[in-house]
Amino acid sequence: MSKVFSVEYPILFSHCDPAGIVYFPRFFDLLHRAMEDWFTFGLEERFADFIMKKRLGIPTVGTKVDFVGPARFGDLLRIELRVAKLGSSSIELAIDSFVDDRPCFKARHTVCVFSSETYKAVPIPDELRQRMEPYLVDAP
Amino acid sequence: MSKVFSVEYPILFSHCDPAGIVYFPRFFDLLHRAMEDWFTFGLEERFADFIMKKRLGIPTVGTKVDFVGPARFGDLLRIELRVAKLGSSSIELAIDSFVDDRPCFKARHTVCVFSSETYKAVPIPDELRQRMEPYLVDAP
Amino acid sequence: MSKVFSVEYPILFSHCDPAGIVYFPRFFDLLHRAMEDWFTFGLEERFADFIMKKRLGIPTVGTKVDFVGPARFGDLLRIELRVAKLGSSSIELAIDSFVDDRPCFKARHTVCVFSSETYKAVPIPDELRQRMEPYLVDAP
Amino acid sequence: MSKVFSVEYPILFSHCDPAGIVYFPRFFDLLHRAMEDWFTFGLEERFADFIMKKRLGIPTVGTKVDFVGPARFGDLLRIELRVAKLGSSSIELAIDSFVDDRPCFKARHTVCVFSSETYKAVPIPDELRQRMEPYLVDAP
Repeated sequence: MSKVFSVEYPILFSHCDPAGIVYFPRFFDLLHRAMEDWFTFGLEERFADFIMKKRLGIPTVGTKVDFVGPARFGDLLRIELRVAKLGSSSIELAIDSFVDDRPCFKARHTVCVFSSETYKAVPIPDELRQRMEPYLVDAP
Repeated sequence: MSKVFSVEYPILFSHCDPAGIVYFPRFFDLLHRAMEDWFTFGLEERFADFIMKKRLGIPTVGTKVDFVGPARFGDLLRIELRVAKLGSSSIELAIDSFVDDRPCFKARHTVCVFSSETYKAVPIPDELRQRMEPYLVDAP
Repeated sequence: MSKVFSVEYPILFSHCDPAGIVYFPRFFDLLHRAMEDWFTFGLEERFADFIMKKRLGIPTVGTKVDFVGPARFGDLLRIELRVAKLGSSSIELAIDSFVDDRPCFKARHTVCVFSSETYKAVPIPDELRQRMEPYLVDAP
Repeated sequence: MSKVFSVEYPILFSHCDPAGIVYFPRFFDLLHRAMEDWFTFGLEERFADFIMKKRLGIPTVGTKVDFVGPARFGDLLRIELRVAKLGSSSIELAIDSFVDDRPCFKARHTVCVFSSETYKAVPIPDELRQRMEPYLVDAP
């Protein structure tokens, strides 16, 4: 059984557009925040230290998102994060989100670990990889 | 030959992250802005009136983006927008972006026209569809 | 003794600029969020309902902010909110913020209650005013 | 006669809140953008180079803003920037903004020049100061 990292964020005034629903680029802010919280609380690798002290980064390589249902001001958005695939330096995340039990957005989001010194991809640190593996979606 | 809608936006301080490159959710702000400018200047359908007076909207149905190269603070980002497919109410956009001539992000971005009154999809207005057709990517 | 509404928010990657510190406009996002949370949790007036159901708003009339010390990616920002003055429709907030015990920004921030129907100022609803009064800074 | 640096920015979808008017923290984004453009185009000191190559910064020391009238989606916001006071390392800007000829926000906004290496204030470079002086508001 794979682990799931699950968080809930309130939809704030600042997330919403003149139609009263989340302006879609802000979903990516929330997705990024879920990833930060996964590092810090799920993987016990404080994300701010990973970036600022270890001088690593996780730029986005690609993202594919289906926006299935809207989220409205005042909703509570639940984001569930799993790992779809681990490459040598790339991490493909499978991310689902819900308002109550209605699906909101579904994403396949790929980042890679890189060095802020060299601006080049580097292997996922071993210990971090081991902590990521339990989140791998089970093969069928 | 299909038409291309091309715009250039400067990469501002506010777009950039602690690594000095564009924080990826802000690319979606720039993509949305290119779409607004396409409506207003390319299709001669003032986007603010489309939303506020005509009470229509174009929520995002899905997006698929490859982030090929970074954009840095001070860069000038060129965004090229074409139409990949026109459905009855959906519009699939093919969007390329460049810094100088280096590719930055490439997107397939699908929106649909909907009514802000009923929150339901509505057909693309005829006149608007006709102005969109010249931007259709030619079949091979 | 006046009541204080106190909240803590983590400084996220998205708040920070190329210098690794909070880009100042994002402090206003955090200030607004503290105000939303004060309504919902401090005053037990759910802010999203206040805006969307009651069709009221609290546009900013003026703000005066001193930025005393920076906040960095990974810091935990504590925001303390009191009421400096209650007018018939205006609310002047006294807001202090801290990282650990170092002061970050200090604000006097004035909003007024208005109707989203008429776009005119309306009196602070009585019951809400009563719940705000305990947060009034004591006169010397 | 003092010089005025004047720019116009369209109010975009992303600037606006569920009430269809600019969410006030985004005015600070536009104010910052006006300041960036003033450096680059008014003072001929490319702002991105000032930050990234010269390793200087201009953090905000304080701001005082009156929000006199709203700006709506689709409006064109004109920002006028003058210098109210030049200290040895601080710059106090007097900023007015308008939609058509209706005033929008008025700000006194103080920044200081600092070094990104030492995180300490440094004197405004001489040549830059000379180019700023013509923007000083005339004494009465």
